[in-house]
Amino acid sequence: MSLDRANVLLERVDGVIHFGIPSVVEGAQAAGVEVTTVDFQPPAGGDLERIALLEVVREADLAAAIAAANREALGRFLASEPHLVGVGVAGEVIPGMADDLFLHAGPPVTWERASGPLRGAVIGGLLLEGRAGSAAEAEDLAARGGVRLEPCHAHHAVGPMAGLVTPSMPVWILEDRGPRSGERFFCTLNEGLGKVLRYGAFGPEVLERLRFMAEILGPALAEALAEHGPIDLKHLMAQALHMGDEGHNRNRAGTSLLLRELAPALVRVERSRDQVSRVLAFIHANDHFFLNLSMPMAKCMLAAAEGVPLASMLTVMARNGTDFGIQLAAMPGRWFTGPAQAVRGLYFPGFGEADANPDIGDSAIMETAGLGGFAMAAAPAIVQFVGGSVADAEATTREMGRITCGSNPAWTIPNLDFLAAPAGIDLLAVEEKNLLPAINTGIAHRQPGVGQVGAGLVTPPWECFHSALAAFVRHCDKESP
Amino acid sequence: MSLDRANVLLERVDGVIHFGIPSVVEGAQAAGVEVTTVDFQPPAGGDLERIALLEVVREADLAAAIAAANREALGRFLASEPHLVGVGVAGEVIPGMADDLFLHAGPPVTWERASGPLRGAVIGGLLLEGRAGSAAEAEDLAARGGVRLEPCHAHHAVGPMAGLVTPSMPVWILEDRGPRSGERFFCTLNEGLGKVLRYGAFGPEVLERLRFMAEILGPALAEALAEHGPIDLKHLMAQALHMGDEGHNRNRAGTSLLLRELAPALVRVERSRDQVSRVLAFIHANDHFFLNLSMPMAKCMLAAAEGVPLASMLTVMARNGTDFGIQLAAMPGRWFTGPAQAVRGLYFPGFGEADANPDIGDSAIMETAGLGGFAMAAAPAIVQFVGGSVADAEATTREMGRITCGSNPAWTIPNLDFLAAPAGIDLLAVEEKNLLPAINTGIAHRQPGVGQVGAGLVTPPWECFHSALAAFVRHCDKESP
Repeated sequence: MSLDRANVLLERVDGVIHFGIPSVVEGAQAAGVEVTTVDFQPPAGGDLERIALLEVVREADLAAAIAAANREALGRFLASEPHLVGVGVAGEVIPGMADDLFLHAGPPVTWERASGPLRGAVIGGLLLEGRAGSAAEAEDLAARGGVRLEPCHAHHAVGPMAGLVTPSMPVWILEDRGPRSGERFFCTLNEGLGKVLRYGAFGPEVLERLRFMAEILGPALAEALAEHGPIDLKHLMAQALHMGDEGHNRNRAGTSLLLRELAPALVRVERSRDQVSRVLAFIHANDHFFLNLSMPMAKCMLAAAEGVPLASMLTVMARNGTDFGIQLAAMPGRWFTGPAQAVRGLYFPGFGEADANPDIGDSAIMETAGLGGFAMAAAPAIVQFVGGSVADAEATTREMGRITCGSNPAWTIPNLDFLAAPAGIDLLAVEEKNLLPAINTGIAHRQPGVGQVGAGLVTPPWECFHSALAAFVRHCDKESP
Repeated sequence: MSLDRANVLLERVDGVIHFGIPSVVEGAQAAGVEVTTVDFQPPAGGDLERIALLEVVREADLAAAIAAANREALGRFLASEPHLVGVGVAGEVIPGMADDLFLHAGPPVTWERASGPLRGAVIGGLLLEGRAGSAAEAEDLAARGGVRLEPCHAHHAVGPMAGLVTPSMPVWILEDRGPRSGERFFCTLNEGLGKVLRYGAFGPEVLERLRFMAEILGPALAEALAEHGPIDLKHLMAQALHMGDEGHNRNRAGTSLLLRELAPALVRVERSRDQVSRVLAFIHANDHFFLNLSMPMAKCMLAAAEGVPLASMLTVMARNGTDFGIQLAAMPGRWFTGPAQAVRGLYFPGFGEADANPDIGDSAIMETAGLGGFAMAAAPAIVQFVGGSVADAEATTREMGRITCGSNPAWTIPNLDFLAAPAGIDLLAVEEKNLLPAINTGIAHRQPGVGQVGAGLVTPPWECFHSALAAFVRHCDKESP
């Protein structure tokens, strides 16, 4: 408003309505002025550069075109029908996989910039593949460029934490049985907690477990799935949400439902009682076993939304332990990155913040698909673990609904009277409301070779959203009608 | 107050504070008088006879002795440690079981007074045991007194719906590993839903399933348990409450957790792949499989509270389809009964209220132990099924907390910020607050031979509580210090 108009208004008031920093209010109050505080958030946190960018995309015709594009992207996401169809060997089934190639979580990264847990996983992978005889030899080989590193996301795959996929590893095979595609997606099998490769550990017990997984677990599950037939994962996830899972830090229900679904078929495979019993005991002992299925399920659904021009919906959030990266439906394959953040969480006895690696893993694909932190209200049993109350969990889910394109009627949250879970994070809503996605996650030790040290909550860095916004505005300039 | 005093007060007011029936208020309002309504419930619903009985037990010394007795009874209940230790054959393991004896749910009942579903189950039991060649022959045998009927509860057993136990049936064996006892408790294995013996069906498919259960399921589970070792059922129940079960009408989590616990051991038993696979598939296909374990778990805990003089805590609520009966900790084995009530619920397609048998089964032992309707808030996913909202479920749990002796810290309800579930129904609180226990249940067809037709909510008849109150007052007169 003009200064004249402001002065006219001010003559008529005997108090102050203040939009701004609290210290101004404190000063006015100290001077005896009556102050009314208003819960107001300026768009884009008041950042003029971002406000200017948002003004471009809020122009009426373009805004309508973007809204239509997001509806299309969300519709494709919701129509995807990820089914578990088999288990194969990474080197044989993942497109573009090669003998000298290791896949990892998050955006591209070199050995030089790789975090401790990713380095630890690469060392373990080289030992597992027989390409090095010791950790020192493996480290040396990696430093000399003896192994190529590419993101899982570049190969229709995802991986939790370090997310390492080496050619000999067994991987789940998912197929989209929705209307648009028969595309396949991949993820390794979950190793369990503690000293495991995905948290950067590579000791003998880690490698021995990985060999059991390659020689017995993977093949037995492949045979059981051939006997059982495809499993509708979206349906299984819907049930798990009604049984206290949020799909990221709590997967007990999903793991239980998967085991009871597969057990009758697993028993029929031509393997010894001892092998089948070990397979069932391995799954039973690991409440996160289902995570490595729900992650490629989420990837499958989000990939269906890729390639819709003008869609500002996120299709990827992923971290390599050094960088956090996102991708947009409008610009598939293009990473926008920022520094991986510290995780606020609880630590295992004997560990603390100083031990923690920054945020790592492709598992933020769960939040990208509206699960994990976005479905926190479904999992009151974990809120105590991450230091919150049930009300906090419900507030988080409702808050995340403010930055999504819509919701997913296939996934409902009983505690919120069967509210459809938020779905499809909108870059523009994140920027405008100045509200970052909430992510549940595990915490890896910052040194190679140690493993998991805790679990907690994290948000992405603002940088990746800001650079995505700038690029999206240029994309609109090129693509808009 | 005296009439004089009332008149003095009335002179000073210009409105009416009314305790009583709404029509009086409506009359006053119609006459233009300002009316303040107060949410007030007179003790014992204003019933002078019950008020007089309650006044006896509220006398200071006696009230203190009763409170101490209930603390003792509740403490014994909480200290009980029911473990699943095996599977045996009813005729061999249940104390007092005999060739000509069938056990049934609820208080004692004769063939003449038996409801349709109980008659149907007895007919099926006689066919199963080879004591009759046709339903007509079985009915004739039963009518001539050819089979003795006794309550499960008289034999350390419980049974859902008709609750029929015949000598050849396999039964779970539970053992109390708590400080007070090594006593054993028993329950048949759950058959699944629809056309099943416990709902009064006795067709060829019902008998064929029961033969599979006796010949393969029971023995395989017995061998698996011998391999696995005892299972702590209270701990399993605690997990299931965190996964959306209330333990009576929803048992999906309990069933899943039991299956994953037993599967690795089941695979090791010396049986064909086909048999083990059928066992796992049978359990997987029946989300209520765990109910027949949680019921004897509840019975085990409540039995630990039996025999505490002056304890007004309920140890049994059970129905035979004709009568509803309760027992008190102070007077073990003594039934107080009233007519079984109609269940308010939802019906399977093609069935309605006219088809429904009154309330039947020992499964109200779940509510007696603080689960089922008492833990409704733990299972938001079933509230829609029984026609309510999440808020209704939470209100029911809090409401039931008003009539219990205390709560159970081992069983918490995530949605209510990990509130300890209500535990130990106090007869005196039920009477004083005029508030009946809320029970979740299935609905059986009233004719023998049909099976389940729906599920819903029910309350006990007042008669059993009123007669228990009168008897309890006499008991106090005899026992009090």
